[in-house]
Amino acid sequence: MRWPGEDVVAKGVRERRFDVDREGRHVPGLLWTPPDSDGSRPLVLIGHGASGSKREAYVVALGRRLVRHLGYAAAAIDGPVHGDRRKGSGSVPNLPFLEFGQVWSSDATMTDAMVGDWRATLDALQAEPDIGVGPVGFWGLSMGTILGLPMIAAEPRISVAVLGLMGLTGPTKSRIAADAPKIRCPVLFLMQWHDELFPREVVLALFDAIGSSDKRLHAHPGKHGDVPPEEFEASERFLALHLDP
Amino acid sequence: MRWPGEDVVAKGVRERRFDVDREGRHVPGLLWTPPDSDGSRPLVLIGHGASGSKREAYVVALGRRLVRHLGYAAAAIDGPVHGDRRKGSGSVPNLPFLEFGQVWSSDATMTDAMVGDWRATLDALQAEPDIGVGPVGFWGLSMGTILGLPMIAAEPRISVAVLGLMGLTGPTKSRIAADAPKIRCPVLFLMQWHDELFPREVVLALFDAIGSSDKRLHAHPGKHGDVPPEEFEASERFLALHLDP
Repeated sequence: MRWPGEDVVAKGVRERRFDVDREGRHVPGLLWTPPDSDGSRPLVLIGHGASGSKREAYVVALGRRLVRHLGYAAAAIDGPVHGDRRKGSGSVPNLPFLEFGQVWSSDATMTDAMVGDWRATLDALQAEPDIGVGPVGFWGLSMGTILGLPMIAAEPRISVAVLGLMGLTGPTKSRIAADAPKIRCPVLFLMQWHDELFPREVVLALFDAIGSSDKRLHAHPGKHGDVPPEEFEASERFLALHLDP
Repeated sequence: MRWPGEDVVAKGVRERRFDVDREGRHVPGLLWTPPDSDGSRPLVLIGHGASGSKREAYVVALGRRLVRHLGYAAAAIDGPVHGDRRKGSGSVPNLPFLEFGQVWSSDATMTDAMVGDWRATLDALQAEPDIGVGPVGFWGLSMGTILGLPMIAAEPRISVAVLGLMGLTGPTKSRIAADAPKIRCPVLFLMQWHDELFPREVVLALFDAIGSSDKRLHAHPGKHGDVPPEEFEASERFLALHLDP
């Protein structure tokens, strides 16, 4: 665990940039914790969507609210070809989206590499004295589900998850279909009724395939990116219900 | 408005049995209010499901919690061939279910009669000094939606609704299909993923047909009657969000 960036406290939340070294690579992340705290606490891992990053507005806002409202720790890492994993400039807005599509289609190691990165990140975070080995949740929509769902299936430490904006489709459809039934923790699954990227049937099929008996689907009108504030409130409530010590 | 039954206060909730006279018939209802209160307050109308009645456990529990937690008024009336509208004894548990199926199939006036009963009930309740003309919500699943959705479409006083466990199907399908797009208030729509009475496609089609831009679907695993406590909590929160003065 390295801390290459700034250590900033603002509005009751400490934000730190970290790198986890794994197999000769750096996994770049952001960590939000209560300032001046010590001892173990619940931790929520946040997976961002394609074309975003660990610094995406809704990722940062969710991380900060989990600290501010609940005293939890929260962390996000960049997905493949995103954020600080990008080579060169990130100034072209839709380029990571295009590049992710290419990697998703062509790199058969993508899912396992990201699962490994997430697990190494979780190991490193739980070794920090102000996080420790407490209950762990996962929150990730769209690409955050494409890469997060296999992580949850592989990782017994995760005891609650918010997933969605994704269906049984895409280049890794068979992997997602194989992993979804392995998920046993409580799940809140979010869907946008007019999602322009993933048709209703495949989204409903993924909800159906998730193995958890304790799961619920929340659907709202609107496009892929239009998840309303109501579901960020619902996410916080749902995570707290299952992570509060 | 007549008060034919007992007036009981228990655990902070006053319960009164009422009758509304309409076109030579009695509409039998139950009213829950804060005891010793006066002045206008939000009112929630609760429609029970087929084979139940205004005294069904979840109807009474919802009415009481809206009073206890929020200080609202709540009222339920018996549906056709249910509760105190039944002729003779109600001792055969599934008989009202069978009889409702018959009425639903054969009595073309059923929906309009119930809409009229609901509207007359609302008129009468709003004339009571401890209810008055405040914001009004509606909550009704299954038969409560079959008969409640047309009520909401007809009644501009209703500003928020919880509906569900029903689809674009059944003898009054065309009426429901015609009325759903007229609904404009915020809607929480509940669905049971393994509903043995109404298939997923027709339930999703009804959610789709509701005209409100502010609507959300919550789906849970389980059969028709297995709506979890979580959605009664969600109902209360949703009603309060839109009815609180």
